[in-house]
Amino acid sequence: RPWPGHGQPSSTEGGDVDLGTVFISEVIGTGMLTLLGCGVVANVLLTRSKGFNGGWLLINFGWGLAVFAGVFVAYQSGGHINPAVTLGILASGADEYAPGVDITIGSTFTYFGGEFLGAFIGAVVAFFAYRKHFEAEEDETKKLAVFSTGPELRSYGWNFLTEVVGTFVLVLVVLSFANTPNELGPLAVALLVVGIGASLGGPTGYAINPARDLGPRIAHALLPTSRREIRVPTAGRYAADPGTGPGPGDEDVPAAPQRKSSDWKYAWVPVAGPIVGGVLAGLLSQVVF
Amino acid sequence: RPWPGHGQPSSTEGGDVDLGTVFISEVIGTGMLTLLGCGVVANVLLTRSKGFNGGWLLINFGWGLAVFAGVFVAYQSGGHINPAVTLGILASGADEYAPGVDITIGSTFTYFGGEFLGAFIGAVVAFFAYRKHFEAEEDETKKLAVFSTGPELRSYGWNFLTEVVGTFVLVLVVLSFANTPNELGPLAVALLVVGIGASLGGPTGYAINPARDLGPRIAHALLPTSRREIRVPTAGRYAADPGTGPGPGDEDVPAAPQRKSSDWKYAWVPVAGPIVGGVLAGLLSQVVF
Amino acid sequence: RPWPGHGQPSSTEGGDVDLGTVFISEVIGTGMLTLLGCGVVANVLLTRSKGFNGGWLLINFGWGLAVFAGVFVAYQSGGHINPAVTLGILASGADEYAPGVDITIGSTFTYFGGEFLGAFIGAVVAFFAYRKHFEAEEDETKKLAVFSTGPELRSYGWNFLTEVVGTFVLVLVVLSFANTPNELGPLAVALLVVGIGASLGGPTGYAINPARDLGPRIAHALLPTSRREIRVPTAGRYAADPGTGPGPGDEDVPAAPQRKSSDWKYAWVPVAGPIVGGVLAGLLSQVVF
Amino acid sequence: RPWPGHGQPSSTEGGDVDLGTVFISEVIGTGMLTLLGCGVVANVLLTRSKGFNGGWLLINFGWGLAVFAGVFVAYQSGGHINPAVTLGILASGADEYAPGVDITIGSTFTYFGGEFLGAFIGAVVAFFAYRKHFEAEEDETKKLAVFSTGPELRSYGWNFLTEVVGTFVLVLVVLSFANTPNELGPLAVALLVVGIGASLGGPTGYAINPARDLGPRIAHALLPTSRREIRVPTAGRYAADPGTGPGPGDEDVPAAPQRKSSDWKYAWVPVAGPIVGGVLAGLLSQVVF
Repeated sequence: RPWPGHGQPSSTEGGDVDLGTVFISEVIGTGMLTLLGCGVVANVLLTRSKGFNGGWLLINFGWGLAVFAGVFVAYQSGGHINPAVTLGILASGADEYAPGVDITIGSTFTYFGGEFLGAFIGAVVAFFAYRKHFEAEEDETKKLAVFSTGPELRSYGWNFLTEVVGTFVLVLVVLSFANTPNELGPLAVALLVVGIGASLGGPTGYAINPARDLGPRIAHALLPTSRREIRVPTAGRYAADPGTGPGPGDEDVPAAPQRKSSDWKYAWVPVAGPIVGGVLAGLLSQVVF
Repeated sequence: RPWPGHGQPSSTEGGDVDLGTVFISEVIGTGMLTLLGCGVVANVLLTRSKGFNGGWLLINFGWGLAVFAGVFVAYQSGGHINPAVTLGILASGADEYAPGVDITIGSTFTYFGGEFLGAFIGAVVAFFAYRKHFEAEEDETKKLAVFSTGPELRSYGWNFLTEVVGTFVLVLVVLSFANTPNELGPLAVALLVVGIGASLGGPTGYAINPARDLGPRIAHALLPTSRREIRVPTAGRYAADPGTGPGPGDEDVPAAPQRKSSDWKYAWVPVAGPIVGGVLAGLLSQVVF
Repeated sequence: RPWPGHGQPSSTEGGDVDLGTVFISEVIGTGMLTLLGCGVVANVLLTRSKGFNGGWLLINFGWGLAVFAGVFVAYQSGGHINPAVTLGILASGADEYAPGVDITIGSTFTYFGGEFLGAFIGAVVAFFAYRKHFEAEEDETKKLAVFSTGPELRSYGWNFLTEVVGTFVLVLVVLSFANTPNELGPLAVALLVVGIGASLGGPTGYAINPARDLGPRIAHALLPTSRREIRVPTAGRYAADPGTGPGPGDEDVPAAPQRKSSDWKYAWVPVAGPIVGGVLAGLLSQVVF
Repeated sequence: RPWPGHGQPSSTEGGDVDLGTVFISEVIGTGMLTLLGCGVVANVLLTRSKGFNGGWLLINFGWGLAVFAGVFVAYQSGGHINPAVTLGILASGADEYAPGVDITIGSTFTYFGGEFLGAFIGAVVAFFAYRKHFEAEEDETKKLAVFSTGPELRSYGWNFLTEVVGTFVLVLVVLSFANTPNELGPLAVALLVVGIGASLGGPTGYAINPARDLGPRIAHALLPTSRREIRVPTAGRYAADPGTGPGPGDEDVPAAPQRKSSDWKYAWVPVAGPIVGGVLAGLLSQVVF
C-alpha cells in the first residue's frame, strides 16, 4: 500500500524521486512549517505585536495553516514534514514514503535530515521576521515559547503521555485519509492539526513533531534572542528599556534581566512522545484499517 | 437508497462489511470524537491549561474537528459515531447503514454498542491527557463539564426541546448532503457541527448525541476526578493547594472541597432529546427530500 | 445560462421541478438559515447563554454556517434562501432559477413566499430553543437584535448604502462561482457570508437578505418576547427579577421594564437595500462576466 | 508551464483573453479585495462598529475571505489581484499569466494598472460603507490603519524584511498549488492568506501586496476622512463631539483634533518588500519545483 501523500490520489505517472529532491522538499516544507508556526506564537506572545494576546484559536489556526503551506510546497516528498509521520508510515507497512520514494534506511534518514534542518531554518527566519519584537520583549520565557513547546504543569511522565496521545491522533487520522473520498488535499491535515491543538494542546503545547520542537530549540540556543545578547541599535521608541544600558548614576535598575534557558531538560519529551505516538498509530492502522 | 457515509460518493465496489468491523470502526471513531471533544472543553475550562478561557468558538471548532477526525477513522462503518445519526438513517428509510452494511436489529445494536463504548474510552483517554490539570482544578462543576453537557438554566422540558432541535438540524442536513455535489468529505459534517454549536449550543451545551454524553458521564462517575480521589504525588508547583494536606497548625482551611456529582438527574435529557430529534429528521426527510 | 445552484455543476439529468417543491424547499432552507442565524445571536447576546460575549467572529461563523446548512437542505430549488439572490439571478439574465425551474412571475413569487415564510418559522423555532434565556434577559434591545438587524449609528441613507454594498458583494460573487472550478459546494457561499459579515457587517449587522430581516421581525412582534409578556413559571434561579412581581412593600423597584419595540421605522432599510444591491450585481454581471 | 489560476485546473478550451478584459477583471477583483479587507479593519478598529475589538483572527479571516471573493470575481484574468503575484509568475518562468493571457510588457502593465486602480476604488467604497463610523471616530491613526498598513515598531530595514518574508511565502506556496490535487479553488489562497496574517502579520500588518497598500493610501489622502474635513450633518447621537463646533463660551475644549497623515515616509516599504519577496519566490520556484 503506497502512501498517497496526505490523503490525496497521487499522480501515479511519476517515476522515481531521487533522495536529493526528497531532502530539499522536506527542508522547504518543514521550514515553511516552523516559519509560520513559530511566527504565530511570536505574534500572540511578544509585546507590541499586532496579534498580541490573540487567543488560543489564533495559535491553532496559525499552526494548522503552517502545516497547510508546508505540505503544499513539499509535494515532491509527499509532505511528511514530521519524523513522527515518517515513522508512522514506516510502521503502517506502507510500500512507499511517497509516490516514487521507496522505504529504505537511506530514504528514512533523508526525511529525518530534511525535517530537522528545515525546522531549524524556519525558526531562524521567523526570528528575523520578528526581530524588533524580540528586542522589545523582556520575558525570556515567552521567547523560548516562540521556538519550542513547554508544559504548563511540569510532569515528565504525564507530559510525555499527552504528546503520545496527540501524535497518535495525528498519524492515525492521516493514515485514514485515503479511505474516504474528498478533494481537500492538504487542508485535511491542516484542519486535523487545528483540532489537535484545540483539543490536546492544553497541557504541553502540542509539539506532536520531534523536528518542530528540536530544530527551533537549537535555533533558540544559537540565536541572540536575549536582551543581553541583542545590541539594540537605537534607543528608539522604548526608552525605558532596562537592558540597553542605564546611565552610570542610575542606581535603582529594575530586576535583572532573566537568564536565557533553552530548557534542555524537557527537550526529550516532545521528541520521544511523538515518536512513540506515531509508531503506535502506524502499528494500529495495520490492524484496524 | 443507501446511506453514502456523510455525504460522499461511496466506493460501491466493496462487498459486505461484517459486524465486527462495524463495531471496531465505531469504537475508534466515537473514541476519537470524545477524546478530542472532551479535550477541548478541558483545555478551555481547566485552570492553567494553555487554552484556558479560549472562548466558545474554540469549543465549537474543537468539537467540529473532533467529528472530522472521528468520521475519517470510522470510514468502514460510514462514520455514524452517534446513535441519533444511526436512528435518523433508520427512520429515513435507507437501505443500508453504510455501503455493505444492511439495516437489521443486529447491525443497529452493533452501532449503538460501538458508539457508547467508544465514547466512554475516548473520555477516559482525554482525562489522562489532562490528568495534571484535573489534579490542579478545584471546581468540580468544571470537571463534570469536561465529560458531559449541562444546562445553564435548568428546565428539563425546555432543555429537552433544545436538544431535539439541535439534533434535528444535524440529522436533516446530514441526510441532505448526498444531494448536492461537493468533495468536502467529512468536512461537511464537521462544519455543520461547528455551526450547530455556535447557534444552538447556548442553552444546553449541544450534546446532540446520546453516546457523546452518556459514555463520558459514566467515565466521570468511575474515574478519580475529584481532588479527594486524586493522590497528588508531589507538592509540585502549586504548593498552596488546599487539597494536598495543610500543615498541622493550619486552622483556617478554605471551604471544603466540593462534592463530586455526575448529575444523573439531567442525564436522560441529552439521551432522549437527540433520539427524538434524529428520528423526526429521518421521518421528515422521507417527505421533503 | 442556467443558474447552477451556488456554483456547483448541477445534475442536468433532472426534469422540471414543480413549484410546490420549490416552495417547500425554500421554506426549509430559509427556516434553517434563520434558526441557526438567530440562534447564534441569541447565544452571544442573551444573559447566561454559554456563548455569551463570544465575539463577532463567532457571529460571523454562525451566520455563515447557517447559510451552509440552509443551502444544503434547499437543494431542490437551488438554495436561494434570499430574495436578493432570486432577484440577482433574475437581473443577471439567467435562464433558470435552478436546474428545472423556469424563471416566470409565478416561480419568482414562489421563491419569495417560501423565503419569507421560512425565515419567519426559523426565528420562531430559535426563540423556543432559547426560551429560558429570553425569560432571563432584561434588555429588550438585545432581544430584538436576536431577530432583526439594527444600525449602530442610525442614518437611514448611509445604513441603506451599507446594505446595498454588502448584498452587491454577495450576489456578484455568487454569480461568479460557476466560472472557477472547485468542489466546495455550499461551503463557498457560506465562507463568502462569513467574509461579508466580518468586513461589512459593522455598521448595520448585515441583513443582506430581505427575508432574513423581515420574517424574524414579524416573529418578534408576534412572539411573547418581553418580560411583561412572559409568564415566568417558577422563581427559579434568578430571584431578584424585577419583572416577576416584587413584594408589596418593595418600594425601590429598579427601572421599569423596557418597552418592547420591533423598530418598524428601520424595517425598510434591510429590505430595500438588499433588493437594490442584488439587482445591481445581477445587472453588472451581464456586463463583466 | 502555464499559470493555472490559483492552483486549479483551468478550462483549457478558452482562446485568448483580450487585455481590456484582463484590466476590468483585475479592477473588480482587487476592488473586492480592498473593499472587504479595509472593511474588516474598519469593523475592528472604528468606535461603535459591531465588530469593534474583534481580535486579530477576525482581521485574518476578513482579509483571507476578501482574497477568496476577489479571486472568484477576477476569474477571467486568473485572479492575481496583487502585483507581487504577477511578478512572481513572471519570475517563475511561466508561459502565461492566465489561460489565454500571454506574458508581455503590455499585459504585465495591464495587470498592474487594474490592480492599483481596483485597490483604490475598493478602499473608497469601504470608506462610504463605514462613513458614519469615520465621522464618529476621533483617532486619526486608526483611520489610516483602515486603509494602509503600518509597523508597530518602526524600523524600515526590519519592516522591509518582514514584508519580503511574508510575500515570499505567499507567492512560493501559490506557485506550488497546481502540483497537489485538490478542489479547493480560491479557498486555498484564501486560507494561505489567513495563515500568513496569523503568523507573519504581527510586525507590519502584512501588506504582502503593493496595490493593497498604495491604492488605499492614496484614497486615504484624497478622501475627507478626518473630523475636520467631515461635515457632520446632524448633531445626532454623539453630541460631545469636539470636532463639530463647541459653543462660543465653551473654553475647556478637549485636545485639538489630531492632524491627518497618510504616513508617506513608510509607503515604500509595503511596495518594495512585496515586490522583492514575490520575485525571489518566483526565481526559487524555478529551482525547487
